[in-house]
Amino acid sequence: VITRESCLERDRVDPLAGLREQFALPDGVIYLDGNSLGALPRSVDARLRDAVTEDWGRDLVLSWNTAGWIEMPQVVGDKIARLVGAGPGELMVTDSTSINLYKVLTAALRLQVGATRRTTVLSERDNFPTDLYIAASVARSHGMDLRLVDGDDVEQSLDESVAAVMLTQVNYRTGRLHDMDAITSAAHRVGALVVWDLAHSAGVVPVDLIAADADFAIGCGYKYLNGGPGAPAFVWVHPRHAAVASQPLSGWMGHDDPFAFMTEYRPAAGTARFQCGTPPILSLVALECGVDTVLAADPVGGMHALRAKSVALTTLLIELVDQLDDEFALTVATPRDPGRRGSQVSILHPSHGYEVKEALIARGVIGDFRQPDIIRFGLPPLYTRFVDVYDAVQHVRGVLELGEWRDERHRVRARVT
Amino acid sequence: VITRESCLERDRVDPLAGLREQFALPDGVIYLDGNSLGALPRSVDARLRDAVTEDWGRDLVLSWNTAGWIEMPQVVGDKIARLVGAGPGELMVTDSTSINLYKVLTAALRLQVGATRRTTVLSERDNFPTDLYIAASVARSHGMDLRLVDGDDVEQSLDESVAAVMLTQVNYRTGRLHDMDAITSAAHRVGALVVWDLAHSAGVVPVDLIAADADFAIGCGYKYLNGGPGAPAFVWVHPRHAAVASQPLSGWMGHDDPFAFMTEYRPAAGTARFQCGTPPILSLVALECGVDTVLAADPVGGMHALRAKSVALTTLLIELVDQLDDEFALTVATPRDPGRRGSQVSILHPSHGYEVKEALIARGVIGDFRQPDIIRFGLPPLYTRFVDVYDAVQHVRGVLELGEWRDERHRVRARVT
Repeated sequence: VITRESCLERDRVDPLAGLREQFALPDGVIYLDGNSLGALPRSVDARLRDAVTEDWGRDLVLSWNTAGWIEMPQVVGDKIARLVGAGPGELMVTDSTSINLYKVLTAALRLQVGATRRTTVLSERDNFPTDLYIAASVARSHGMDLRLVDGDDVEQSLDESVAAVMLTQVNYRTGRLHDMDAITSAAHRVGALVVWDLAHSAGVVPVDLIAADADFAIGCGYKYLNGGPGAPAFVWVHPRHAAVASQPLSGWMGHDDPFAFMTEYRPAAGTARFQCGTPPILSLVALECGVDTVLAADPVGGMHALRAKSVALTTLLIELVDQLDDEFALTVATPRDPGRRGSQVSILHPSHGYEVKEALIARGVIGDFRQPDIIRFGLPPLYTRFVDVYDAVQHVRGVLELGEWRDERHRVRARVT
Repeated sequence: VITRESCLERDRVDPLAGLREQFALPDGVIYLDGNSLGALPRSVDARLRDAVTEDWGRDLVLSWNTAGWIEMPQVVGDKIARLVGAGPGELMVTDSTSINLYKVLTAALRLQVGATRRTTVLSERDNFPTDLYIAASVARSHGMDLRLVDGDDVEQSLDESVAAVMLTQVNYRTGRLHDMDAITSAAHRVGALVVWDLAHSAGVVPVDLIAADADFAIGCGYKYLNGGPGAPAFVWVHPRHAAVASQPLSGWMGHDDPFAFMTEYRPAAGTARFQCGTPPILSLVALECGVDTVLAADPVGGMHALRAKSVALTTLLIELVDQLDDEFALTVATPRDPGRRGSQVSILHPSHGYEVKEALIARGVIGDFRQPDIIRFGLPPLYTRFVDVYDAVQHVRGVLELGEWRDERHRVRARVT
């Protein structure tokens, strides 16, 4: 049986335990929603104050050069590149995940122009909805169909009608992890290009885009990269495509010489052409602080050490839920094979998942809920302790034993999480 | 002859003079580049600290509801709407100017589907380049041509081949102000739709989108709205189009019920469908502070009082430049009719505009330079004093008399302004 003391002991010997000090976490809260919004890095407050008072306030427009603002999409992009197996200059921070998906999926379909038998964009039915909305829009505007299949059926659904495959590596509902290498290889065998959304993997699952031979990748900055609410997203393009790919959001920041103010668009070399408008500096400053909290794991083992702790945390949570009384009727929806899941555990409650999640928040345990019946717990290894997992499951037990989920007083309104 | 004392006297009696106190401006600097990056509102520092430490740090993901994050694109949008003659719910803050242009120009061309004789998007040759790059991309993807004409020739170039007209109200180089009412009417008479870019007008020129019967408008947050570097942009859609217009960047924030996580996209009612990804909260907080600095003029006359002061400032600058010695060979490139210019004065130097601009920065007078020969001075009436204009022109005289522009020691590198 797993005791609270054994969890405390695991925290005492955890070589990554000190990384938690990078974050300002409120007392009395167990925060298991880092898969929706990562915690606040302590460095953000001072860095933003400097950016506001010194750079914007004192140096004003000159800061585009003197404070390096104009370089930030590349500088922060190079830092994220180190976390996802990409090289310097290959990855840019810009716009939102949805917009970057629009760019790269359009670029992928344009690369397939001439392959007239390719009439399909293939994705997973349970992909994150915004990805599906964008994929449907891009497919339609190219006269193609968006074909949706179950997550387990992606590889067997590949054939030469597929122009591009668009998948999120870690499923937002279940936490199920796709095999990037296998799917990318299978897609390439039929001549399809592959776009990977790393929203729930960057910063928590080791990703090696070059080793997987992926074509395009996008991802968000506000989950496991701890970049703050609505942080800018990123876009990666394999070097074999970067110099030839074209995308329709051809704004001045993607121009080869934006300050020449030429009438004609001439795309920048490489991934820089996937930028569009003026970069959002204040949000970029916060995102850089967030990415730095992940890079701070390098001296203690980097992404692979984070992954090992993530697996240990999700395994512990599953084991503790398994030990709860059968009458609570909870089901683990996340794959039990640690190699097939991200840093998230999803629990099904048969009828009142939303109310249970609300009652947990009233106890200071912040997870979230996804339609129709999933309670999600994100377990970022940078700041989640083993004892947090233990205590969270005790609160789940308490909410269910005491029927607190039936009581509206225990609920706070928290629709968006 | 205009004396420094007369300018000081104008500042003493200026009913808008107190608005300058809203800004943290550095000592020893005359900042005439608010048309590129507005000055820092004093409120930003504390508001951002709250957003970071209280909302993000303490309340974490719950702040999407408890701090009203999810409503911010509409709340700040409604404030901007008041400055441009739009109603509540008609204008959203989202993405960048370039991306919003892509959305609305695509929406305009989709509204013209079926009008097969309409084969052209019409714009001005000297429009801001990113607008031209996006317009060319959108036109091409609809099988249309982008036709560029001189700014004075827009009205006479209108015919029934034109699907949409895309113009920036105030020219970024010369400060020339288009007649929005006349051009919109003329375009409608031939059945064309009109997209207005308000980048250099929102917050400084009275705009009345509904009175002008415009179709779509976009604009940026970081110039005269004082929203900070790379602040989010805005998009406005006339109510007659909002419920039927469709745009291709169909991300989840434009969905009618984003948190139902439906597989199918169903656009939100109204302009909300022009949102795409998760809104950038930290940047939105700063932008709201900036917009509030403009709304603070309401008790002393609002946009019309700001416009009157803006005209007085630009007129003063032109008069002072006219009084400089002919041997300096400076030319005013901005229209001398105040009704035909924005809040900017552009001066041509025959050979070394860039070096003169750099030498002025070395003296603490920050303007900027635009290829090939234009020195731009932006004069935001919220914080520019008459004596600033006087002193700036004396510095121009000094730089030219002493030949400081020939001396590299007087220059700082400030390519991006």
